Amino acid sequence: MRIVGLGGGVGASRLWRALVERVDPGGLTLVVNTGDDLWIHGLRVCPDLDTTAYALSGRQDIDRGWGLRGETFRAMETLRGLNRLTPDQAPWFNLGDADLATHLFRTGGLREGRPLSRITAELAAALGVGPRLLPMTDDEVETHVLTVGGSLLHYQEFFVRRAAGEELRQVVHRGAEHARPAPGVLEAIGSADLVLLGPSNPLASIGPILAVPGVLQALAATAAPVVAVTPVVSAVPITDPGEARRAASRAVLLRAAGLSHTASAAASLLRGVADAFVLDRADAIELDAITEMGLQVALADTLLSAQGHARGPDGVAEVVDTILDLGARIGPRQDRRTPGSAS
Amino acid sequence: MRIVGLGGGVGASRLWRALVERVDPGGLTLVVNTGDDLWIHGLRVCPDLDTTAYALSGRQDIDRGWGLRGETFRAMETLRGLNRLTPDQAPWFNLGDADLATHLFRTGGLREGRPLSRITAELAAALGVGPRLLPMTDDEVETHVLTVGGSLLHYQEFFVRRAAGEELRQVVHRGAEHARPAPGVLEAIGSADLVLLGPSNPLASIGPILAVPGVLQALAATAAPVVAVTPVVSAVPITDPGEARRAASRAVLLRAAGLSHTASAAASLLRGVADAFVLDRADAIELDAITEMGLQVALADTLLSAQGHARGPDGVAEVVDTILDLGARIGPRQDRRTPGSAS
Repeated sequence: MRIVGLGGGVGASRLWRALVERVDPGGLTLVVNTGDDLWIHGLRVCPDLDTTAYALSGRQDIDRGWGLRGETFRAMETLRGLNRLTPDQAPWFNLGDADLATHLFRTGGLREGRPLSRITAELAAALGVGPRLLPMTDDEVETHVLTVGGSLLHYQEFFVRRAAGEELRQVVHRGAEHARPAPGVLEAIGSADLVLLGPSNPLASIGPILAVPGVLQALAATAAPVVAVTPVVSAVPITDPGEARRAASRAVLLRAAGLSHTASAAASLLRGVADAFVLDRADAIELDAITEMGLQVALADTLLSAQGHARGPDGVAEVVDTILDLGARIGPRQDRRTPGSAS
Repeated sequence: MRIVGLGGGVGASRLWRALVERVDPGGLTLVVNTGDDLWIHGLRVCPDLDTTAYALSGRQDIDRGWGLRGETFRAMETLRGLNRLTPDQAPWFNLGDADLATHLFRTGGLREGRPLSRITAELAAALGVGPRLLPMTDDEVETHVLTVGGSLLHYQEFFVRRAAGEELRQVVHRGAEHARPAPGVLEAIGSADLVLLGPSNPLASIGPILAVPGVLQALAATAAPVVAVTPVVSAVPITDPGEARRAASRAVLLRAAGLSHTASAAASLLRGVADAFVLDRADAIELDAITEMGLQVALADTLLSAQGHARGPDGVAEVVDTILDLGARIGPRQDRRTPGSAS
């Protein structure tokens, strides 16, 4: 069974971890958002690709929620000292010493002219990542936000440095209009048996992937059912600080688009893209609203721990079974395939 | 007293350390070779500038002979793991975790469009380096060597990766012909009271500085006496492995130029550039040969420990007194100043 997952970093990789407990990792292709990628201290950093690779290779720091387990921070501590006279350049994006190796590998490769997709494949192989890992594009696409205060910021600067603490006027995916999907992205979608839209920020993580020319068309043309997992669970209080930050950012971005921070608002962005939507059981009250958008809706416990672990008794997350059941129920979408389109 | 020192990394910085025990560091300008600089793992690394800055700020690892004291190597160890499937890209130039902060500071600054000279000044200030530190140029000049086996290598690749273990056909300073001296270099030489050519590899460290258009002219035009300190001491057996490597490289480069690994061969390269030459007392047998080249020659114990410490009883290296005496004895070179030239 060939499954393609589209998504960002933390939320999506929890689902992918849960998924590979049920399906063959070799049949799974992950198309990862690179709109969060940034140049910082001369390095090309790809937060979502790295989070995904670290999570799927079991290297992630579960407690901290990002980066590598057992990490040290000598380089950044030293850099802070070097920046004491130039505080505006001081590091705000923390890079661990072991994590730096990933960025050095990548930046060196880019400088030598290798495309990001090839470097990503090399890194994934070296780390022992089971699924195939693809950046959405080899081109530089960067999500920028315009705050109501008039600052134009890279998304990471808004999210990390400013703690997602400002209202926004606009979100743009710079460079997206001229970007080409990375080699393999359209082919994977076209030949998939099931396509998943992970529980990632709809505007900052899924949005950039859909903004790459050709991706929406491939999703429309594929025979595979397209199933989305809700990125929003409104009815469950958030206790984890990392999740609180991610929720705050999702809410700000949705507000900038005139939407509320609800599952149905997230679903409304996927109208015409997804066939089905997995709604958290806690938000069951939104079921009818989403059904009315023309999406099939299934309920599940969607909140996963960092290990991607299950609530279910068999050790596999209920949401995985719900997704696979939905996919089987919908089956190949013969009707939506148009002559001459991909696959 | 305004002193300008031209030099490379390890050897020269020992002399500069000894010198600042006698003279006001604020009056000392160091023009440092950047021909060894390289792009590696996406970072711009400037070995001679960093060695000089680390030595003069007391941060150098004295035992290892390079890099920072108390260094760790997690990033490089992790990178080696990432490169297990791509061994041709595996690190051969060791970068410590704290040292990485310097390269991140620099590479980030270059990417933002700041010139190397400004970044170097920022780093020197942050590290607390007393003398003024100038790269020879803000432009990229890289020393490459052509081996008899036909390999064209960056000097660092020859020196570090191949342990200077091959005979050479040719040494070229790529980009030198179009390089401009960094802001302040010609002015410092022009207004100096004394110019020193440090005990650095004459072809790999002093050579690139002299290859930057304008430097030779400034040295010819300045009123300051130009005093060179021998980079070669033939008559003293080498025991330190780092010094053995440097000596091997000097010997190979001198052989490629048809010269022997002797003080007089090194002096012959400075004919018409230097006024005087400080010869090691152990090599006194070469005194007449160097005098015949038109150079004033003084004898001293020139070998310095990594601390730049003295052999003399007053705690200052004899070679420093010898240099200052020579400078005072020669005095301003009114005769060599041509109308309309720098100063």
